[in-house]
Amino acid sequence: MRKSLLFIVLSIISSAMLKAQVITSPDKNLTLKFELQSNGVPSYQLTYKNKQVIKPSTLGIETKDVPSFLDGFTISKTEQSTFDETWSPVWGEQKEIRNHYNELLVTLAQKAVESREIRIRFRLFNDGLGFRYEFPEQKNLTYFVIKEEKTQFALSGDHKAFWLPGDYDTQEYSTVTSNLSEVRGKMKAAVTPNASQTPFSPTGLQTPLMMKSKDGLYINIHEAALVDYSCMSLNLDDKNFVLQSWLTPDAQGNKGYLQAPTQSPWRTIVVSDKAGDILLSKLILNLNEPTKFKDVSWIKPIKYVGVWWEMITGKSTWSYADVPSVKLGETDYSKLKPNGTHAANTQHVKEYIDFAAQNGLDAVLVEGWNVGWEDWFGKSKDYVFDFVTPYPDFDVKELHRYAASKGIKIIMHHETSGSVRNYERHLDTAYKFMVENGYNAVKSGYVGNIIPRGEYHYGQWLVNHYLYTIQKAAEYKIMVNAHEAIRPTGLSRTYPNLIGNESARGTEYEAFGGNNADHTTILPFTRLMGGPMDYTPGIFQTKVSAYNPQNTSFVHTTLAHQLALYVTMYSPLQMAADLPETYNKHMDAFQFIKDVAVDWDNTWVIEAEPGDYITLVRKAKSKEEWYLGSITDENSRIANVTFEFLPKGKTYEAIIYADGKDASFDKNPQSYAIRKLKVNSKTVLKQFVAPGGGFAISIK
Amino acid sequence: MRKSLLFIVLSIISSAMLKAQVITSPDKNLTLKFELQSNGVPSYQLTYKNKQVIKPSTLGIETKDVPSFLDGFTISKTEQSTFDETWSPVWGEQKEIRNHYNELLVTLAQKAVESREIRIRFRLFNDGLGFRYEFPEQKNLTYFVIKEEKTQFALSGDHKAFWLPGDYDTQEYSTVTSNLSEVRGKMKAAVTPNASQTPFSPTGLQTPLMMKSKDGLYINIHEAALVDYSCMSLNLDDKNFVLQSWLTPDAQGNKGYLQAPTQSPWRTIVVSDKAGDILLSKLILNLNEPTKFKDVSWIKPIKYVGVWWEMITGKSTWSYADVPSVKLGETDYSKLKPNGTHAANTQHVKEYIDFAAQNGLDAVLVEGWNVGWEDWFGKSKDYVFDFVTPYPDFDVKELHRYAASKGIKIIMHHETSGSVRNYERHLDTAYKFMVENGYNAVKSGYVGNIIPRGEYHYGQWLVNHYLYTIQKAAEYKIMVNAHEAIRPTGLSRTYPNLIGNESARGTEYEAFGGNNADHTTILPFTRLMGGPMDYTPGIFQTKVSAYNPQNTSFVHTTLAHQLALYVTMYSPLQMAADLPETYNKHMDAFQFIKDVAVDWDNTWVIEAEPGDYITLVRKAKSKEEWYLGSITDENSRIANVTFEFLPKGKTYEAIIYADGKDASFDKNPQSYAIRKLKVNSKTVLKQFVAPGGGFAISIK
Repeated sequence: MRKSLLFIVLSIISSAMLKAQVITSPDKNLTLKFELQSNGVPSYQLTYKNKQVIKPSTLGIETKDVPSFLDGFTISKTEQSTFDETWSPVWGEQKEIRNHYNELLVTLAQKAVESREIRIRFRLFNDGLGFRYEFPEQKNLTYFVIKEEKTQFALSGDHKAFWLPGDYDTQEYSTVTSNLSEVRGKMKAAVTPNASQTPFSPTGLQTPLMMKSKDGLYINIHEAALVDYSCMSLNLDDKNFVLQSWLTPDAQGNKGYLQAPTQSPWRTIVVSDKAGDILLSKLILNLNEPTKFKDVSWIKPIKYVGVWWEMITGKSTWSYADVPSVKLGETDYSKLKPNGTHAANTQHVKEYIDFAAQNGLDAVLVEGWNVGWEDWFGKSKDYVFDFVTPYPDFDVKELHRYAASKGIKIIMHHETSGSVRNYERHLDTAYKFMVENGYNAVKSGYVGNIIPRGEYHYGQWLVNHYLYTIQKAAEYKIMVNAHEAIRPTGLSRTYPNLIGNESARGTEYEAFGGNNADHTTILPFTRLMGGPMDYTPGIFQTKVSAYNPQNTSFVHTTLAHQLALYVTMYSPLQMAADLPETYNKHMDAFQFIKDVAVDWDNTWVIEAEPGDYITLVRKAKSKEEWYLGSITDENSRIANVTFEFLPKGKTYEAIIYADGKDASFDKNPQSYAIRKLKVNSKTVLKQFVAPGGGFAISIK
Repeated sequence: MRKSLLFIVLSIISSAMLKAQVITSPDKNLTLKFELQSNGVPSYQLTYKNKQVIKPSTLGIETKDVPSFLDGFTISKTEQSTFDETWSPVWGEQKEIRNHYNELLVTLAQKAVESREIRIRFRLFNDGLGFRYEFPEQKNLTYFVIKEEKTQFALSGDHKAFWLPGDYDTQEYSTVTSNLSEVRGKMKAAVTPNASQTPFSPTGLQTPLMMKSKDGLYINIHEAALVDYSCMSLNLDDKNFVLQSWLTPDAQGNKGYLQAPTQSPWRTIVVSDKAGDILLSKLILNLNEPTKFKDVSWIKPIKYVGVWWEMITGKSTWSYADVPSVKLGETDYSKLKPNGTHAANTQHVKEYIDFAAQNGLDAVLVEGWNVGWEDWFGKSKDYVFDFVTPYPDFDVKELHRYAASKGIKIIMHHETSGSVRNYERHLDTAYKFMVENGYNAVKSGYVGNIIPRGEYHYGQWLVNHYLYTIQKAAEYKIMVNAHEAIRPTGLSRTYPNLIGNESARGTEYEAFGGNNADHTTILPFTRLMGGPMDYTPGIFQTKVSAYNPQNTSFVHTTLAHQLALYVTMYSPLQMAADLPETYNKHMDAFQFIKDVAVDWDNTWVIEAEPGDYITLVRKAKSKEEWYLGSITDENSRIANVTFEFLPKGKTYEAIIYADGKDASFDKNPQSYAIRKLKVNSKTVLKQFVAPGGGFAISIK
């Protein structure tokens, strides 16, 4: 009896095996097909308006200690469903986000392993596809170790790609724009020096990976909800244009330790035939879990200045003394000779507080306030910072009092130097110190190689750490802006106190040799797909030598371009990164930074092409105000701005902060012109944009 | 001028280079000679009463990133001094300890590296030699990475050795007794299975390494004050009988990260022509720093019972439910079916509390009280325990109340499963929980491989961790007894709240196949050199099958031998490890455990030979009471006990707990006889000791 019953069940399964499963996006533009290949290998393909986005691509996970999830599968069950909900983020580019998808859930059984099942869940949105592996609770699968995830993204051709070298430790590379077939040849030059870097393959690429196909599709591959799993990079088969997932290993080369019931992060493919749709996609946020925070009143977007750019340029220093080495708890700082260049001193910080207060900003970031900066980097030093002991010239209590009296918050800075055990040891104490001294946001940093040695910035061990600090911070009602941490994957939906990340080449590189002039026309299509970036725009003195004669670097944009970034580079945390002394010379231009919002009701893309230009406009949260930003690469252009986003029949005053006619990023970056204009929904503006230039418009 | 000055200085150095430096111990028995070999390699040798202990042996450290400290040295300075001080430990085998040595401090310069200096500090005591490398603060040396320490111990011949396989993760091996030349041949069989093990060489040996030379010297090599450095093992050149230091690496193979000014731990050579002198040596404690604790009133020796042996034998379980997997914070234990074998339930713990209170013991250890034991081991599970959530059947508050009402403390148990980041994350919360619930001592455990993966139990990363937990515990006035942690190196002088360690094959192995019958005659010469061991003696029901019919293991001692261990195995923390139900059947013998002290004014060795027998007597702290313990290996013998340790002219009553005439560890272990005897300082006792037997005497 048992045998015949088994036969019947198997029959059902085999017939199911033959059936391909197809779902479409709500608007029918996207079609996903799932099927098993003849050897029981799961496979999917994706089309957009009948164009191939992903050719048949296999799915699977290779494991170390249990049979792999690669082949021999039969379909034991398929389920389809539809979901449609609108939700409001705590902060964001839109007041409301629609989460609308058709779902296919495939349950797969593997004959070779008795009664073992996995699931693959596909969610097809109008803006793309998300899918993940799920490992339900079951008898024959609990703990397993991932050797490699083998998720393929087989592309339809030799797309143009905006790529970074695949690396386990950094995304602080300049984006290379090339066809996929050119990756291998350009890789060596693309791997520029970094404080911590581990490139892994001559065709390794990072996500978010932005591509454009010859038939006009814009395709973005990334991941969503990276929790307790290793970061996914991609390795390119540059003969067949197949990308395959490549996870970050631990010190022993293992790529993930999982305990069922569990799941992988979502693998995301955002696609459209309009570049602007990529920028507007909320697919990655939608694939993250809603927040469980009950009280979010303490999470507030921030506009800030900081004791920072002056150290980045070399004008001043983080460190207090010029000594080769210190030991926390042993070195008596009161006996060290101050170097005279330490920026984070009480008096100087007060100047920043005054400037912030005078100009309606919210906060002042202070880096280099705490002991340990004399030998903080590259020493593999475990006990490198304690996060609570100020330098002798930094008076925590007095600055708290002074800032509070002016309505200004000070932003804490926790550089870990990659020594994460040390940071975790001090985390509670450090957060308590923040609460006691009036700080409600922290910029954290992970410069240099990770300690424990052998772990990488993007491995599961660190992914777990970053989230731990965010969760802990939430207990103290602290907002986190983590630099050099894992690039975001939409987790700010679940943890809205994650208000910023760096995880890309920020403005600081303008003082380290410069960013490419097209850099900021690409980032919104790549790095920003997963969440906001603390890019730190607003550099008005674009010649770094003005602050430090020995530094010949310069910012590869015009001044007006810097203003536009407050709109084009979405973030709830926006720095006015230049020095007050410089802003005071350009208060007419600085007015835009004073005015621009950091939280929004809505966003429209006016025109966009990755690597070339972006024109975006956003409506300020709960205000009848709009802010428009437009940037270009090294080529000048005429931007076409239609004002259809404005309510019909009403006229508003626009202030246009534009490049001067003779402006250019390399020769005349500070040439700008400010003019006023009455606008309504029918206005059309043709605006000159200089090489490396841009313009910003405030509309009230 | 500069050149000629340099020449003169160099001349002085070269003439100094030729001079050998010699110091002797205060009693002149030991002579240390330091000299530079012709290529500038530092070298030392040691004699005891003109017998060679250490033949000329080179010293040095190989580094990764700066020039090595191996050769090319000149002596730039030598200093000699004498130190003599008597100090009182917070707890110990003696009320007062004399710290008396002659010191030679050699400053060495390396021509190859401009103005770089290291120091080697030798301290020569009557009981042996300690020396260490010191790296003073200096311009051309701050951070460096150790590739290997190359400290040699060139022996005078093919000594008899009591050795454990060198291993980065465990010392839970049976001691092998063999000549050094036999190590290689016996290594394979010596590496028995363990929950975590990484043997490193076919001639790798652990310290403390006990040896006996053919010319009658007892030599013990270990280290003192292991702080922020990797554990030292030894690798044997079995042709020349030269031992060389072999440090424990990290995940990347590096063996230490140092920041000058700093120093290595002390390398120790305890030597005598009397075996008993090795047992009485306080050299390792003396080489540790005095405690900085101001208040030590909360540190108290403890005699305890525990909910433990019943799980070790398999009679009951740590876990509450028979499920393959749990997730902390997700699994609802109240919905799991109890397995009915969970020992740490409120009612059962109360029985232990009652027993402890009735018999004048101090505390009850409870293992398996907290959630997570269902899948705690071998899963590389990061979040394995939270250290504060009890099982549904364990009522923390009620047990605290009940225990306190009877004057009994409960000892906390923190098993980490090797997941040290997880432990550190919870450490403050866990210690606070202890304070709030009346616990003042914790037994911690590190079973299984370490997470972060790639780190070893004995590497610098973990050495740092263990001390961190001890220092943190002190902030909460908590005493620590760490199992599977690094073997002690006398740090309890500095941190007297480190009241115990396992770090060797304890009594538990009697239920896992058994310990050798000579095991406890060796441990005081090896493992106990660095500090006390929580050996957990007192097993009266030596047949494990009495508790679990499926377990055929048996204890390889007689019952009387178990009593003697309370004296021969010094510890301020002594468990009565068997079950109350068994003790209740042997209350006459249990009387010795009730009576025996756990802190002492003084200790005398009556007779001792490693691997054969030990007879020790100790005077109880601040009491006119003496307790004597005598044990033998598998061979029966007649012990000769002189009572010269007693004050002259006074008579005391001795109770002798001896083997029965027909006793033996394997055939008749529970045969014992108790008798009384009047004794004075002139009494001589000849006492039969059965195979695997022993006897204990209380004297009042």
